Amino acid sequence: MRIDIITVLPELLKSPFEASILKRAIEKGLVEVHFHNLRDYVTDNYRQIDDYQFGGGAGMVMMIEPIDKCISALKEERTYDEIIYMTPDGVTLNQKTANILSLKENIIILCGHYKGVDQRVRDHFITREISIGDYVLSGGELGAAVLCDTIIRLLPGVLNDETSALTDSFQDNLLAPPVYTRPADYKGWKVPEILTSGNFPKIEKWREDQAYKRTLERRPDLLKE
Amino acid sequence: MRIDIITVLPELLKSPFEASILKRAIEKGLVEVHFHNLRDYVTDNYRQIDDYQFGGGAGMVMMIEPIDKCISALKEERTYDEIIYMTPDGVTLNQKTANILSLKENIIILCGHYKGVDQRVRDHFITREISIGDYVLSGGELGAAVLCDTIIRLLPGVLNDETSALTDSFQDNLLAPPVYTRPADYKGWKVPEILTSGNFPKIEKWREDQAYKRTLERRPDLLKE
Repeated sequence: MRIDIITVLPELLKSPFEASILKRAIEKGLVEVHFHNLRDYVTDNYRQIDDYQFGGGAGMVMMIEPIDKCISALKEERTYDEIIYMTPDGVTLNQKTANILSLKENIIILCGHYKGVDQRVRDHFITREISIGDYVLSGGELGAAVLCDTIIRLLPGVLNDETSALTDSFQDNLLAPPVYTRPADYKGWKVPEILTSGNFPKIEKWREDQAYKRTLERRPDLLKE
Repeated sequence: MRIDIITVLPELLKSPFEASILKRAIEKGLVEVHFHNLRDYVTDNYRQIDDYQFGGGAGMVMMIEPIDKCISALKEERTYDEIIYMTPDGVTLNQKTANILSLKENIIILCGHYKGVDQRVRDHFITREISIGDYVLSGGELGAAVLCDTIIRLLPGVLNDETSALTDSFQDNLLAPPVYTRPADYKGWKVPEILTSGNFPKIEKWREDQAYKRTLERRPDLLKE
């Protein structure tokens, strides 16, 4: 899989891709991630990528021309399955979308900034608009990092323990059950007895019950899907 | 405001705080952000912070003792308004929660990893559990960065243009209207005429209509709140 990220702040994106699971996935050659600085696609001397909005009002808008140039340059090199724009008014990301995107070959992610991009970019270049949640971020970069993390960890070979991703929250519309590790007694706070019983069928049943109970209490909406 | 982030991967968190708005907020002294490496609170030689889960199964669990030590050391220095645990089964972050948290003085954010933290940490130390969305991340670090970004940009003095944050999506339960900037005609794709009319009351009305229309089409749930 190849992911091209178009951004005005490539330096903001660096560290999440240089640590832990994403770093290992890149080193193993399971995914290629390329950052493209939008300012490299500007022709004027000021390297200007944004301008005031038509109609007035606070906040700058990212111009169509540098984005067009960058996307067109990438599309000349290969075919892209999706050109994704990270924006708070996009479709809210969920695990199902992450699963779908993890099966793609080449994707572009465009990070919005300021008041967002010129609407014509969205109308003519973007195939999918994604929001990571109902809150406003300084830019699309953290959203892009979140999206990449959710996708990349699903690629075969990325997680050491294949079963680990499958028992995560959301994969079966249930939240994960509570987990405990040593010591069994910490300052008088004890682990539930069932977990140290060695009765694995009973433990499995307890976990299922707990996952269902937690989902019912916290996220009854997930059970309705 | 002071934010203390407890993590096993402080290096993953670096770059989002060293660029753009978060960097400027820190430099201006509007917020202090401190990273605490959980491994510094482990006494054994292996700097082990996780262990197998009781009852068997794939995935490691973060142990209670180092987390207790780290949180207790911080609490000896000052009083905390919130001790937040980033977890996919927490309460989903929204703009209202970000607004509330931006008014706090001192908060701790604990980043989960692997299968999560020992449940006793959640039962005895955590005051608030937050998820940034219905998807699974490799760890709580990106969630913590997202949470910090949503909070810090709301602090007075952080954004240059005070009105800018108020017209963002979600602050009034409406998505933002489309925006356009120069050129007015790009390859035949034109800006809506109204925006270059100079009739500002009409432009304001158009924007309100567009915001409402976009919200109705994309996120009718927001209009019901």
